[in-house]
Order: sequence, then C-alpha cells, then structure tokens
Amino acid sequence: MKFVERLKRAWASSQSLLCVGLDPDPDKLPRHLAGAKHPIFAFGRAIVDATADLVCAFKPQIAYYAAARAEDQLEMTIAHIRRHHPAIPVILDAKRGDVGSTAEMYAREAFLRYAADAVTVNPYLGLDSLQPYLDYADKGVIVLCRTSNPGARDVQDVTSGGRKLYQLIADKAAHEWNANANVLLVVGATYPQELGEIRAIVGDMPILVPGVGTQGGDVAAVLANGATSDGTGLVISSSRAILYAGSGSDYAQAARAAALKLRDEINLCRKFKGA
Amino acid sequence: MKFVERLKRAWASSQSLLCVGLDPDPDKLPRHLAGAKHPIFAFGRAIVDATADLVCAFKPQIAYYAAARAEDQLEMTIAHIRRHHPAIPVILDAKRGDVGSTAEMYAREAFLRYAADAVTVNPYLGLDSLQPYLDYADKGVIVLCRTSNPGARDVQDVTSGGRKLYQLIADKAAHEWNANANVLLVVGATYPQELGEIRAIVGDMPILVPGVGTQGGDVAAVLANGATSDGTGLVISSSRAILYAGSGSDYAQAARAAALKLRDEINLCRKFKGA
Repeated sequence: MKFVERLKRAWASSQSLLCVGLDPDPDKLPRHLAGAKHPIFAFGRAIVDATADLVCAFKPQIAYYAAARAEDQLEMTIAHIRRHHPAIPVILDAKRGDVGSTAEMYAREAFLRYAADAVTVNPYLGLDSLQPYLDYADKGVIVLCRTSNPGARDVQDVTSGGRKLYQLIADKAAHEWNANANVLLVVGATYPQELGEIRAIVGDMPILVPGVGTQGGDVAAVLANGATSDGTGLVISSSRAILYAGSGSDYAQAARAAALKLRDEINLCRKFKGA
Repeated sequence: MKFVERLKRAWASSQSLLCVGLDPDPDKLPRHLAGAKHPIFAFGRAIVDATADLVCAFKPQIAYYAAARAEDQLEMTIAHIRRHHPAIPVILDAKRGDVGSTAEMYAREAFLRYAADAVTVNPYLGLDSLQPYLDYADKGVIVLCRTSNPGARDVQDVTSGGRKLYQLIADKAAHEWNANANVLLVVGATYPQELGEIRAIVGDMPILVPGVGTQGGDVAAVLANGATSDGTGLVISSSRAILYAGSGSDYAQAARAAALKLRDEINLCRKFKGA
C-alpha cells in the first residue's frame, strides 16, 4: 500500500491527526528506567502503547538514538510498533540529504534497515539527491519546506522572482518531484501564515507539522490554514510536551493524558473545517 | 587545538591536500574480506594504513556504515585513525541539519560518540540549527555550499538580488556564522567556476572539495580557482576512485597507488600557485 493511502486510513481509523514524536533524551527519561537493560526502548514502548489509539503516526527522531549509541533500541522500538500497532505508519525523522550514491545508502538505512514507512529529507541538494528515496514508490518522502525554528528565515525566506525559497520548494515538490505520488512536506506549526501559502501551492498533499507544544505553535491556526477541505491533510507532531508530561512512574499515563488533550483540541478545530 | 590549525599542520606535515573519503559500499568490498568478523572495519583500516602518509584528512561517510548496521565499525575505524595516525584530522561526513534540540544530539553523535574533528552540515535550516555544532569551538563545522551533484542547481542556484543561494551561504558562513573561526565550506570539484566565486567571498577559509575522481572534477581547475595564495586552503576528497582502485587481495596497494597519483597531480598543480 502506498504511504499516503496508509496515512489516510490511519487518519480515518484513529479519527486523529496527531503524531507522537519519539525524541528520547537520555537526560529526561524517568529515573526508575535508569536500571533497565534497554531504557530508551522501554520508554518508547510505554509511550507508544499508551498513545497508539490516539495517533495517526509515530515519528522517532534518529538523532536521539544515535547520540546515545542506541540504534538497536530504535530498531526495537519500530519493530514493536510494527508488531503491536501495525496500522500506524512510522515516520523516521532523519532529515537526510546527500548526493546520489550516498543517498541510496541513507534510503536503505530508513526503508530497509529500520523498515520505516516514510523518512524526512532535506531539499538543499536538489532532485537527484531525493531520487533514491522517491524510487521507493510505496514509501513516503517528506521534504523539509518551512521548518519550525526561528532561523528558518535565514535561508528559506530568500526571495527570488517574487517568491520565497520555501514556496519554490513547495512548488517543485508538488509539480516536479512527485511522479510517484509519494512526496509530503514539513512545515512548522510556528509559521501558520506560511503553512496557508504552502497549502495553496500543493493542493491536498499531506503536510507534517512539528512545533506545536513546547515550540509554541498554535493548533487553531494550523488547522485553519493547513487542513484540507475534508479536515485532514495534516500530521501534527508533538514530542516533548507529550513524552515529558510526567517524570515519575506514571509517565506513560501522563503522556496519554497530554496526547488525548491535544488530539481533542485538534479535533475541535477540525470541526470548523467541516470534518 | 582548533580544527583549522590542525588542518594547517596536516597540510604542512603531509605536503598534501588530499583527503581519502571512506565510503565502504558492502557490494564493492574485496571478496576475500567477506568472511572477516568486521569486514568494513578491516577494509577501512587497510585503506587508512596504506594512505596515511599521503593525506591531510580522512572523511568517513556515515551513510555507508548506517545502511550496513555497522556504526560499531565506524567507531573502530575512527579509533584506529586516532591511535595510529593521530595527526590526521577526521571529518565525519554526515550532512546533518535539524532544529536546535535535535541538532544538539547530532553534535554529540559527531563530536562525542565518534570523536570526529569536524562534521559536514546542511545550512537549509539557518544559523540556529548550526549553533550547537559551532559551540564546539575546537571542532570544524563544514557547511554545504555548492554540492558536487548535477541537481545542485535546482536549489543552490536560486537567484536573489543578483546573487545565487550558494553565494549567499558562502557570505553568511564567512561573515555571520564564523564567530568561533571554525566554519568551512563544501564546494564540489565539478563546479570550478563557482569554486572561484566562493573563494573570492570567503577569503582563506578552508574548503572541502569532493567530486574529483569518479564524479569527474578537474584537479587543475580546482587548484587554479580554489587554492589560497599559499597553495593550500583546500581539502580535496576522493573516495571511490581510491577505495576501489583494486578489487583483489592487493586492494590496499592499489588504493595507495591511486592516492599517490592524485596527491602528486594536486601538488603539480599547486606549483602554479607558487606553493
């Protein structure tokens, strides 16, 4: 099944646009996990199991595993999602970007080694650097367009012929790079106006939206500007505000409560789109 | 010691601008290594030991290790260089790019886990995404500027106010991002004219130049357009043309012969710069 179709089914069956980002910072894990053999996996598994019925996707961020020398625990986490929650797509947040032969290796890493359903990638190197991912026609290739950080303006707002770079990337993504209908975009929740501009360029292409929660993105503005006419089209990702909602032995329940609250807030806003 | 100083000493002591890129493709390793316990490490170690006196840097490309589930062999390879060739800087080619909190994790991965001397990074997310690397003042932060692939034009040639994006990145790298004097750039050997433009913008900032060898970059044009007035300023990287110069049991000697030839070709061209 193609990734966008998988995502649409997940939106429908979960009645949720929420994605939980798995950013397991070793410094923030609940203390009682410190003695576990695989504390990062134990943490991720508990978060996944506590929130699986509330989400349309999980998004593990590979940097947290790599910094901790814990690629094996990333494999275990994704395998756990596959086995116990097979309908939920897994987005590997890796933001890779490299020339052709190396990009082939990164595509193998994401899609074969980790068996992710989709991967985030950086467009700075152009189409031929994305092609090795795009060639996996059933996988999702989620291109950075307008990122959630303040410095996004430094490069992404460069203006050429009256259009900003992020608008140009959105245009290329929708009209030049999407032959396999497997391209999505990343647009930060912290830039709702830009999200609206990008939605107008890309039609109903799904957009991954990080930056609600700790980074301060506004859910109502994201839905108003980013949702498609049927009230979907968005994968709204929150990481820290959910993962670290609690720090004691009840951290998974606290994460569930935070996820439930955010899912409901999103769904309330969706009603205004007629969903 | 700061990275640029380390690099200058390596240029002087090796009398070489050559960098050997370690891109160990499992499909291309010599057959007799297939039975080794750590074939990728065995391959890299042999290449390193056969070429160490000919180079100013080694550049392992992490994607090849990650695709093969061999991060441990990357650690072993870098540790081997550290122990046996301690004067040679190690550039981790990772091309990372992510928002602040995640970038901190990638910086830990490169500088603490792998103990690399420098890492390649992607500028698309702007200064705050680079800051966590820049804060390691003794480490090198090598920013993608003009990459060696054909698709580099898709995004890097976007023109704003009469300047192309890669020129803008070069300007920011030299004048806004370099407070710790630890920024370098990546410019592909396949674009010698652009290399000259970038050299004019960044003064004597060292530039990492991949793309000679298999990708077809011309050494004479690279030196003519990219070298500083003292005939240095460049880290000219070749991977496949050296690694796979031979495929039998004499692959390391074949790699040495290829590296020697390229080093000498580079040095011949340096003479015209008065070095």
